Amino acid sequence: MPTDRPQPDFVLVRPQMGENIGAAARAMWNFGLDRMRLVAPRDGWPNPSAVAMASGAGRLLDEALLVETLPEAVNDAHFVFATTARTREMTKPVVSPERAMQMAAEKIADGQRVAVLFGPERAGLENADVARANAIISVPVNPAFASLNLAQCVLLTAYEWRRATDDVVPEHVQMSDTDWANQSDIEALAAHYDARMDDAGFFFPEHKADSMRQTLRNFWSRMPLTTADTRLLHGILRQMVRWKDRGD
Amino acid sequence: MPTDRPQPDFVLVRPQMGENIGAAARAMWNFGLDRMRLVAPRDGWPNPSAVAMASGAGRLLDEALLVETLPEAVNDAHFVFATTARTREMTKPVVSPERAMQMAAEKIADGQRVAVLFGPERAGLENADVARANAIISVPVNPAFASLNLAQCVLLTAYEWRRATDDVVPEHVQMSDTDWANQSDIEALAAHYDARMDDAGFFFPEHKADSMRQTLRNFWSRMPLTTADTRLLHGILRQMVRWKDRGD
Repeated sequence: MPTDRPQPDFVLVRPQMGENIGAAARAMWNFGLDRMRLVAPRDGWPNPSAVAMASGAGRLLDEALLVETLPEAVNDAHFVFATTARTREMTKPVVSPERAMQMAAEKIADGQRVAVLFGPERAGLENADVARANAIISVPVNPAFASLNLAQCVLLTAYEWRRATDDVVPEHVQMSDTDWANQSDIEALAAHYDARMDDAGFFFPEHKADSMRQTLRNFWSRMPLTTADTRLLHGILRQMVRWKDRGD
Repeated sequence: MPTDRPQPDFVLVRPQMGENIGAAARAMWNFGLDRMRLVAPRDGWPNPSAVAMASGAGRLLDEALLVETLPEAVNDAHFVFATTARTREMTKPVVSPERAMQMAAEKIADGQRVAVLFGPERAGLENADVARANAIISVPVNPAFASLNLAQCVLLTAYEWRRATDDVVPEHVQMSDTDWANQSDIEALAAHYDARMDDAGFFFPEHKADSMRQTLRNFWSRMPLTTADTRLLHGILRQMVRWKDRGD
């Protein structure tokens, strides 16, 4: 059974190659979508090429709703998006994939069902299909090379669904067994380097010493240091002193 | 020659299948990127399978910078992103593809060069590669099925680059030879229907007539009608009256 998770239905309209149906299933499941509908796949159904390509997402194919006509595939939908690369001679709202999936998330949270139509590989949706949609999704491709394939179009739309609905990874720093250095860690580090560099005669010539000290102190505060980093830097300095003391 | 357009360099690190290199080229060019770098492709270079797959984006392969080691590929970069599916035991900022390409756009506008690393198909980037990056890009995939392939990862990143930098299609309604109806168009339409429906005995029973009239009037204002729509609706009504008058 599909997950209970509320989500749009992705409807592949008259898809041609089984491989592309399988790749579309993988693209959906990569972003947590598992409700596929198939309208009159050219090579019949089930399709062994689709199964071979879907590895890991084969369940979506087993559970896909198979129908003969587009109206049957969207009868229960309250809002239908059509993906299309070409401009149509039709008065219709046009939205980006991002905006479309935000709208879908709002409608689905409101208890509505949303369907997204993807056309056959070669020619895309027919005007008669697009006329049934409430809005068009337009992917912002390079006008000089607009050659997204079916699975890629499914992938981008599924990605935007996940972005619109999931707690996606916020910007963060992944910390490996450490924590950010606090001011006392930084002060201790700065003092250690200041003292040893002074011993080493680094702050020379005399009239530049103050400015050099300030540059070095500022450097420590500019760096995003962890406590592990400060231990590493203390260790480097101590080792240099030991090396000097050994007098190799 | 690549376009002059400022853009990040996409670096494929030790890619394996030529087909995937070709598909990555297509994915890049779909979103207007044409600067590819290749580090030690497994099957040598040039690669006929890559060329066959890249149809329409073959120029990117001809112009790709081919190097033996990752440092050579990113020497001129001021900021390096690494795409990776796995968490690494490494302290490093982690950002979404969207945020990464916003950062890239800011840095590039500031005159810096930015590189994005994509690992080999099977195992992804090695820790030694990731250690050279300033930040990690994490695609928010389904944790139960994280199986993006190389070209898909390139596609999503290129898509986010275009979203971050181009005037992408804003939400709009594509109008086909028409314009929005204005209030006078709507009033005329409402009056026409009100009058004919009154003639037809639609507002019945009497005590509900006012509320029915208001419901109908409200309906017209809720609909996003174009002038072409109003002409269509006037025409339908006139035709119904003609049909009645013909007395078929």
